[in-house]
Amino acid sequence: MAYSVPSLENLIDKFASLPGVGRKTAARLAYWVLSLDKKEAYDFAKAITDASDSIHQCPVCHNLTDDETCAVCSSEARDRSTICVVESPRDVTAIEKTREYKGLYHVIHGLISPLDNIGAEQLYIKDLVVRAAGDEVKEVIMATNPTVEGETTAVYISKLIKPLGVRVTRLAYGMPVGGNLEYADEITLFRALEGRSEL
Amino acid sequence: MAYSVPSLENLIDKFASLPGVGRKTAARLAYWVLSLDKKEAYDFAKAITDASDSIHQCPVCHNLTDDETCAVCSSEARDRSTICVVESPRDVTAIEKTREYKGLYHVIHGLISPLDNIGAEQLYIKDLVVRAAGDEVKEVIMATNPTVEGETTAVYISKLIKPLGVRVTRLAYGMPVGGNLEYADEITLFRALEGRSEL
Repeated sequence: MAYSVPSLENLIDKFASLPGVGRKTAARLAYWVLSLDKKEAYDFAKAITDASDSIHQCPVCHNLTDDETCAVCSSEARDRSTICVVESPRDVTAIEKTREYKGLYHVIHGLISPLDNIGAEQLYIKDLVVRAAGDEVKEVIMATNPTVEGETTAVYISKLIKPLGVRVTRLAYGMPVGGNLEYADEITLFRALEGRSEL
Repeated sequence: MAYSVPSLENLIDKFASLPGVGRKTAARLAYWVLSLDKKEAYDFAKAITDASDSIHQCPVCHNLTDDETCAVCSSEARDRSTICVVESPRDVTAIEKTREYKGLYHVIHGLISPLDNIGAEQLYIKDLVVRAAGDEVKEVIMATNPTVEGETTAVYISKLIKPLGVRVTRLAYGMPVGGNLEYADEITLFRALEGRSEL
């Protein structure tokens, strides 16, 4: 007998299925959608179906794109001698924001993690090795996260690529800019000391 | 030259327009949508357009419904002698969850707030008075929030309805269940003392 509006409940359910969104937030978001005029609501829905329809992996680097190959792989301006290996498309966005890196990417879509039953064969490592074996490639930068899984994956890949005569490098460890020595963990501090440079 | 995927950027923009969702969370949600299979993404989009299409105000109580009149107004089981006045449809959901209240509702969609330029004429107060003047109605419960605006609105409405010979009541003030005396503000404590009852 309790009052309920099926299409509202359904919308709340959908929002609640988003990562990190609980029932209360989902209800707030659903009521917000109801406050939109019809065109805005349809635009929102269309953004979801458009993204779902058109976004796919770049066949070369496995980054996300809505073109045939991604904007980086198809750009004439990028340096084709360097490949930066990252875990996920989000990492590409993060590195692009620095406006420092001009090379190519390779997204392996995950990290080797025996505990989660993820082995090298589930990741896009095989075709990274094929790319690295190409004539143009001189350096592969391992930019996986500084975690146990990220390290393991970086070491695993470097063992496959080094024999090809390609330079394999790793992102620097150290203090984050704006960080606080007091709150830094010992391992980070140790790595920062180890990697110190001349002033 | 920076890498970007237009349909992904568009989806992130849409999510970022949700209340309380920043760019980083919006990006996380957008990537989550991309991880859905096509059917799930379309179901999500359809939930939005369905809600936007079918949900409207009940012509009697102004609660949200996707039926002609809302489930409460059209139910035979509800007590038609009592009307509970609330600010928003969310408050109806909150009260329904108690499973205690068996009467009808009236959603005024806002509170009187001179600072925000909201007067009584912008709220659904006029037709509340018409409803209260009906033969069946014996009690109107003011369940607006215990804030200055909620109080003002409750007092304003009670002055319109009392002359009709209808009983007007207000939700009790006091300590929230599970609350802590130490952290209660003075006004709440004062009201809790004032409203004390025999043990």
